[in-house]
Amino acid sequence: MDAYTESMQRLIEALGQWPGIGRRTAERLAFYLLDADEDEVKALEQALRDIRTKIGRCAECGALAEGERCAICASPRRDRTRLCVVEKPKDVIRIEATGGYDGLYHVLGGLVAPVEGVGPEHLDLDRLAARVGKDEVREVILALSPTAEGDGTALVVAERLKDLKVRLTRLARGLPVGATLEYANPGMLADALRDRQQIDKLSQ
Amino acid sequence: MDAYTESMQRLIEALGQWPGIGRRTAERLAFYLLDADEDEVKALEQALRDIRTKIGRCAECGALAEGERCAICASPRRDRTRLCVVEKPKDVIRIEATGGYDGLYHVLGGLVAPVEGVGPEHLDLDRLAARVGKDEVREVILALSPTAEGDGTALVVAERLKDLKVRLTRLARGLPVGATLEYANPGMLADALRDRQQIDKLSQ
Repeated sequence: MDAYTESMQRLIEALGQWPGIGRRTAERLAFYLLDADEDEVKALEQALRDIRTKIGRCAECGALAEGERCAICASPRRDRTRLCVVEKPKDVIRIEATGGYDGLYHVLGGLVAPVEGVGPEHLDLDRLAARVGKDEVREVILALSPTAEGDGTALVVAERLKDLKVRLTRLARGLPVGATLEYANPGMLADALRDRQQIDKLSQ
Repeated sequence: MDAYTESMQRLIEALGQWPGIGRRTAERLAFYLLDADEDEVKALEQALRDIRTKIGRCAECGALAEGERCAICASPRRDRTRLCVVEKPKDVIRIEATGGYDGLYHVLGGLVAPVEGVGPEHLDLDRLAARVGKDEVREVILALSPTAEGDGTALVVAERLKDLKVRLTRLARGLPVGATLEYANPGMLADALRDRQQIDKLSQ
């Protein structure tokens, strides 16, 4: 459209490609950026350049890193006896946000999905086995999504680590906190029944 | 948070300042940008730089322009006998999107709002009067919001142009298309009654 100038048009098109951002929102954001402080827009440009040029994957765990190792692997305060296995770097952030884990991570880089042609060979399993074998790791926690792909991948990981002396656990399943029995689906309830917890254990 | 690297953290903070973008959405967008094609991110950076450096205001009408005049003022195909007066550059785009106007524009740069200390002297009225006086303008269409500020500004513009030989009109008021009488508010209905249209005129 003529009334946008050419560079506004390009900005609106770029923003409109983002997930969840429609044409109308892209226009609104472009106008916001047009009127924004020069410093604010420059900081944004710098951050965009930096994520493209500075961020890679941690050589140890595969999480996001600026430099060779991520801040978690590099930290002397993390418990090196536990490895939490996740699908992707974003999962590390979700788990860190709970504040309830102080071990290390291992990012698989995907889940086994035969339909989409993703086999075990596409996952970072060799390095996982090497880390579990040589480090002081005593527990491997599988923090994968409770889906067919997640469960299938858990089996693949378990098979791969079966000869190593390590405790293998997975995230608990049951009712999500705040749920009502009335709206719980059968799968949730079946998990919650099967893995029912003894009440005196809860106070530990 | 450690798990984000420093530049992701900066990007998330920058995106989170945008209107309507919360922390969670900013995180989602930052991860999208992290995984996006290098070309896509570079195009975005370029567009951000360009809107900051290339876009100014049209020397004639005050709309967005790259270069001295906007594409509308520069076009030989626009009808130079009509001027549509709007509050801000974005309004030009909204009216262009209707496809129903082929005249020129004049951007006031605001509406008179005594409470906020915006008086007529803050609006681009001198240049409007000059354009109406010297050009071949025969009609000035006030396309201002139907609010107290918009109506007040319309009066100010009318007063300013009263000695010039020009037809002054404003956007029609009435029921918004698709509305039901049941939910129309009294103001809408009063406008619709007062400006009721003769049926044979509608077929013109």
